[in-house]
Amino acid sequence: MSTFEKLQKAIALNDSILCIGLDIDSAMVPDSFSDISTLISFNKEIIDHTKDLACSYKINFAFYEQYGLKGWELLEQTISYIPEEIVIISDAKRGDIGNTSVRYARAVYDTLRTDAVTINPFMGLDSAQPFITGGYEDKMAFVLALTSNPGSADFQRLGSEGRSISKHVIDKFYSNFNHHSIGFVIGATHPDELAEIRETIPDSFLLIPGVGTQGGNIEAVMKANKGLPAIVNVSRDIIYSSKGHDFALKARDKALYYREILR
Amino acid sequence: MSTFEKLQKAIALNDSILCIGLDIDSAMVPDSFSDISTLISFNKEIIDHTKDLACSYKINFAFYEQYGLKGWELLEQTISYIPEEIVIISDAKRGDIGNTSVRYARAVYDTLRTDAVTINPFMGLDSAQPFITGGYEDKMAFVLALTSNPGSADFQRLGSEGRSISKHVIDKFYSNFNHHSIGFVIGATHPDELAEIRETIPDSFLLIPGVGTQGGNIEAVMKANKGLPAIVNVSRDIIYSSKGHDFALKARDKALYYREILR
Repeated sequence: MSTFEKLQKAIALNDSILCIGLDIDSAMVPDSFSDISTLISFNKEIIDHTKDLACSYKINFAFYEQYGLKGWELLEQTISYIPEEIVIISDAKRGDIGNTSVRYARAVYDTLRTDAVTINPFMGLDSAQPFITGGYEDKMAFVLALTSNPGSADFQRLGSEGRSISKHVIDKFYSNFNHHSIGFVIGATHPDELAEIRETIPDSFLLIPGVGTQGGNIEAVMKANKGLPAIVNVSRDIIYSSKGHDFALKARDKALYYREILR
Repeated sequence: MSTFEKLQKAIALNDSILCIGLDIDSAMVPDSFSDISTLISFNKEIIDHTKDLACSYKINFAFYEQYGLKGWELLEQTISYIPEEIVIISDAKRGDIGNTSVRYARAVYDTLRTDAVTINPFMGLDSAQPFITGGYEDKMAFVLALTSNPGSADFQRLGSEGRSISKHVIDKFYSNFNHHSIGFVIGATHPDELAEIRETIPDSFLLIPGVGTQGGNIEAVMKANKGLPAIVNVSRDIIYSSKGHDFALKARDKALYYREILR
């Protein structure tokens, strides 16, 4: 089954467009998990308590890489614990010359066996192609288009030939690749642009981060998206709902809340 | 000692601006190293035979990540085998929202203890800042500006307000950060732009990839660079000089050749 289909099925199964970001950090978990070797138990608890509420888990590699080899082990253990029917997104924001991207694609799709990856378009189409074609058509690459952070204004919003760089990225990827093999990352902090962009790419899956701690307004996002294919990511605001023994139950409550308002 | 100083010292020590890319791949090494667990021996042989000829080793993370946990172990082993006086560049092309970039910076500088990193500027200054400031002023982040691949034309060469996006990236980073804490990646495949860019950022270190297999013309690059601070990376064309038992000696010969013509 392709990731595109798997994502549609997972959304239907759990009646949810919520993606939960497993941004693990020993400084933010309850004290009983402060030892790195116990972080896997934290992730397992979170997964156990939310797996019927999310369509996807997003693994942000930075949070794992900060622990080196132990972090990579945690990454692999976490991925293999996620139920088969839930889409796993490698939030790695990779991208390099083609010969290198081939290896990054192998890492996230073959070695780690995740369903999707986030990629950075700055180096151009040939840097993205190994994540999208050449045997990986059934996977899905979410292309950064307009990110949720203030710095998105620095280069993504620059205008060229009457369009922003973000729009150039979207147009170029949308016209060159199968629409089921790619998606786009549009931050929840830009509902106006989201509405505008949504018109031009109605059939693309969007990955929308920036809700919760980053301050994106969910109602505005939902209105701008018009019910078209999209998943909305929340990380810290769900998994770090409590530092007490009840952390997993509190995370579940928050996930229930987000699933509901994302309907 | 800051990375900037360490790089100057290493260049003087080995009379070399050659950076050697350790792009490990079990399909390209001699047959005796085809088992992944023996790749560390290959890297050690290459380092032993070239460490007096290079100012820097560049570790391209994709080649290690393709092997998952074993690859990350190989990455750590390789880094710790490189002599103290040679600069180690984490060629990771990372970049994410600030809160995430903080972890990527921790990974490459603290956990892996490398001297420098390559970063992708697409998400803006706030995504790059954690690699450059906040305690890491003595490290060095090489910012992708104009990459060596054909796809660099897709977005980096788009014009905005009379300048290319590459130029915007350079201007913004150059005017906002300490010039000893950042450098720029300019592909060897663009000698004309290199000459032009060089005029505006004479004191910045450039990391110039794209020589060798990628076809960049060294003479044109050297002329364009005018002897200003720069290191030139060669990966495959050095480390995969031979598939025979003489691979390390052949790599040494190639490194000698490159060091010489880069003078």
